[in-house]
Amino acid sequence: MAKDFSTREENYSQWYNDLVIKADLAENSAVRGCMVIKPYGYSIWEKMQAALDKMFKDTGHSNAYFPLFIPKSFFSREADHVEGFAKECAVVTHYRLKNASDGRGVVVDEDARLEEELIIRPTSETIIWDTYRGWIQSYRDLPVLVNQWANVVRWEMRTRLFLRTAEFLWQEGHTAHETKQEAIDETMLILDLYARFAEEFMALPVLKGVKTANERFAGAVDTYCIEALMQDGKALQAGTSHFLGQNFAKAFDVKFLSKENKLDYVWATSWGVSTRLVGALIMAHSDDNGLVVPPKLASTQVVIVPIYRKAEELEAINARAAEIKKALEALGISVKYDNRDTHKPGWKFAEYEFKGIPVRLAIGPRDMENGTVEVARRDTLEKETLQVADIEHKVRNLLEQIQSNLYNKALNFREDNTHYADSWEEFTNIIENKGGFVYAHWDGTTETELAIKEKTKATIRLIPLNAKAEKGKCILSGKDSERRVLFARAY
Amino acid sequence: MAKDFSTREENYSQWYNDLVIKADLAENSAVRGCMVIKPYGYSIWEKMQAALDKMFKDTGHSNAYFPLFIPKSFFSREADHVEGFAKECAVVTHYRLKNASDGRGVVVDEDARLEEELIIRPTSETIIWDTYRGWIQSYRDLPVLVNQWANVVRWEMRTRLFLRTAEFLWQEGHTAHETKQEAIDETMLILDLYARFAEEFMALPVLKGVKTANERFAGAVDTYCIEALMQDGKALQAGTSHFLGQNFAKAFDVKFLSKENKLDYVWATSWGVSTRLVGALIMAHSDDNGLVVPPKLASTQVVIVPIYRKAEELEAINARAAEIKKALEALGISVKYDNRDTHKPGWKFAEYEFKGIPVRLAIGPRDMENGTVEVARRDTLEKETLQVADIEHKVRNLLEQIQSNLYNKALNFREDNTHYADSWEEFTNIIENKGGFVYAHWDGTTETELAIKEKTKATIRLIPLNAKAEKGKCILSGKDSERRVLFARAY
Repeated sequence: MAKDFSTREENYSQWYNDLVIKADLAENSAVRGCMVIKPYGYSIWEKMQAALDKMFKDTGHSNAYFPLFIPKSFFSREADHVEGFAKECAVVTHYRLKNASDGRGVVVDEDARLEEELIIRPTSETIIWDTYRGWIQSYRDLPVLVNQWANVVRWEMRTRLFLRTAEFLWQEGHTAHETKQEAIDETMLILDLYARFAEEFMALPVLKGVKTANERFAGAVDTYCIEALMQDGKALQAGTSHFLGQNFAKAFDVKFLSKENKLDYVWATSWGVSTRLVGALIMAHSDDNGLVVPPKLASTQVVIVPIYRKAEELEAINARAAEIKKALEALGISVKYDNRDTHKPGWKFAEYEFKGIPVRLAIGPRDMENGTVEVARRDTLEKETLQVADIEHKVRNLLEQIQSNLYNKALNFREDNTHYADSWEEFTNIIENKGGFVYAHWDGTTETELAIKEKTKATIRLIPLNAKAEKGKCILSGKDSERRVLFARAY
Repeated sequence: MAKDFSTREENYSQWYNDLVIKADLAENSAVRGCMVIKPYGYSIWEKMQAALDKMFKDTGHSNAYFPLFIPKSFFSREADHVEGFAKECAVVTHYRLKNASDGRGVVVDEDARLEEELIIRPTSETIIWDTYRGWIQSYRDLPVLVNQWANVVRWEMRTRLFLRTAEFLWQEGHTAHETKQEAIDETMLILDLYARFAEEFMALPVLKGVKTANERFAGAVDTYCIEALMQDGKALQAGTSHFLGQNFAKAFDVKFLSKENKLDYVWATSWGVSTRLVGALIMAHSDDNGLVVPPKLASTQVVIVPIYRKAEELEAINARAAEIKKALEALGISVKYDNRDTHKPGWKFAEYEFKGIPVRLAIGPRDMENGTVEVARRDTLEKETLQVADIEHKVRNLLEQIQSNLYNKALNFREDNTHYADSWEEFTNIIENKGGFVYAHWDGTTETELAIKEKTKATIRLIPLNAKAEKGKCILSGKDSERRVLFARAY
């Protein structure tokens, strides 16, 4: 299974690609830049969806669905938005094919040209705010707290499975509010929700902050984000929450009558996470033995493998395994019992290790005699032999331990790879040779930000929230700075 | 709420449209033929998804995701499929926009023309079978039991909310098998699953059968379907399950090495249901007072409304309502307590009746004195006053009664509107004046089928499964017939 599989040390990028392909998570499709998410990869996304969807609903949001197509003219309404999104996108120009006159296949029917071209949504602010105009007349109609699970398309030139694909799956929340403060509160509520999801479910520690003007979402007043550190020392943006001010309300003329009987534009937020998180999950925890899935996002948390020579042995083990499976399932743990006779135990061990199943139980004739089970955990690869009595609670505790161990390991890694740089030499030395997060002073201008990016490929990932004020000098320009910002090379 | 709302008698079609709009289920979007599914409408679809998804998983299927785009050439591979699907579809020809030279908005960048046009999937057999070629080499790789939840686009000219829209949401299952029999078994397994879902969750009785050659899915060997009867006497196809033979395996060259070490083409099925089911649900049960949602698909099953004049009264009712809500939720029942002071009880009663909430509880000062609750059921509009003790079990029983009452009502309606015709006069009289399902003899030719459709707008909905042989004469041609088939005008 793990044959022909690069190590992280040898080639991190190749290791990632090998892992995604060989663990049956996803593959490239016949359509350039679009991936096929295979059942095992999709099961991780489904687990993420279920957890996030519950969190959204628990905070008062509902799901809805808006069209895939956006009329071209909608993009021109919000000046920044069109610059950011209308360029690299899929354009529908026709609505019919016809048989080719040479009899070979089908061709576009030029008589079926659309009057106005339709854009496949790269994000849905425009079509949604055009719709909200009909939904919102008075403060009584507010807030509108809507989320959509959907596919979106951004015509990327260089794509990588999960991390950057032309089509991807995501959720996009779009909320409408009476006041500026309420919209800002919503933006922060979701930022915190995303951070909680990353840490509790993905076992992925994240930093929260606000983007610089240059890195802001096209059309937003402020973009907040969570950033995580991958094992190669590169940062990955794991979610964004945008305070949109009244920009889209103005662009689509969405006004409401306030309690004071005054007509005003509505305040907005939008926020999203995508299948990119599956890529983040893989890169954060997996190792040279294959995938490592945190228990809370594993569709199969425990696999049981029988070890036997004779049919009678298997029969007895089957009965024992069925009892254990039932007891585990009663605790809400998902279990697979693999007693296929087409594969040997060694093959199964390798397979489930490679696929990152958190806990493996093995039961052989000696275990049957001794009333024991061999328990192996994927995160540390440690094995121990435990008494079968009360095994379900032991396994439950172990799953919790694995979940928190993965988080702590990732947190330690981040701490070990977070640096402070006070000069240009120090900064470039860290970026070139060590990688990781670098806190450094910056003069606050886009010009300097772009110059640093140009010279080092490092970008400002975020301006930390509530960072304590600390006067200093910009690492590049030497000008005054009020606080450190977070730099890294990023995915 | 119900003002300006057509009755079914006055204008069934208008009644349906009014209901969809006024109950906040869906609306037309700025994009021709595409709908916006509003949160309340989407909540019904989510309930349907959850129930179906569990049924698919319980029968061994997994979810996956395939690209939205299909290369144009893929459609030409399967001869029937291209005729059925490649014509009315959305075609992506370009991947970039640019600023217009006159400075007004954006235009298509002619330099960014795709080498091969991409079609927005109208259904995914082609892209999926192109992918399966890489997944399947040996019998060990079979069966492949995959489902996808996705959006699809068919460029419809006349659209109606939920029933026929250019873009719609659906699930499409695509399975691959070693043998013909196994694929046929899968086709029937899913047909039965769909029928069970319609009857148990939607409270919608359905008939199962096979389509005629003329009504078959483009590319299928056989198309099985479930058909339901709406209140206006028109039929609605509620789900289809296709046995595809080896057609797509041959078109995309998907072969496997059998246990006998022989290379053979893989056998296939595909099957789907869509957001059209939300339209079916509305039309099957709703009445002139508004929507009626079967309890098993209601996102809110019980609403509690307080009736009070003074603040102290409300306080006492709040406490009582909280107890009842908690007790109901402990039984897995979803409850909303609406104590907003912005709306009067009468307005709330009308609102929830119109939205089809299955059970309404009202609590007033006199109920507080007497230890009672007023319980109203949406299906019959009956009210009764019950002792509050053990109210949660009484409500649970009532929800079960409502679910089965709706089913029985729909079943009685269908039986009352199912006819047998033995002559052309009888047949046309029923179709023109009564509507409903008509069992009649047909000579088995497409020619006659189309002539009947041309003359009466009635189509053959299905050839019943396991119908008992009954010799007769075709109602139109007078030729011999071996069994009756089911006719109706249909959505």
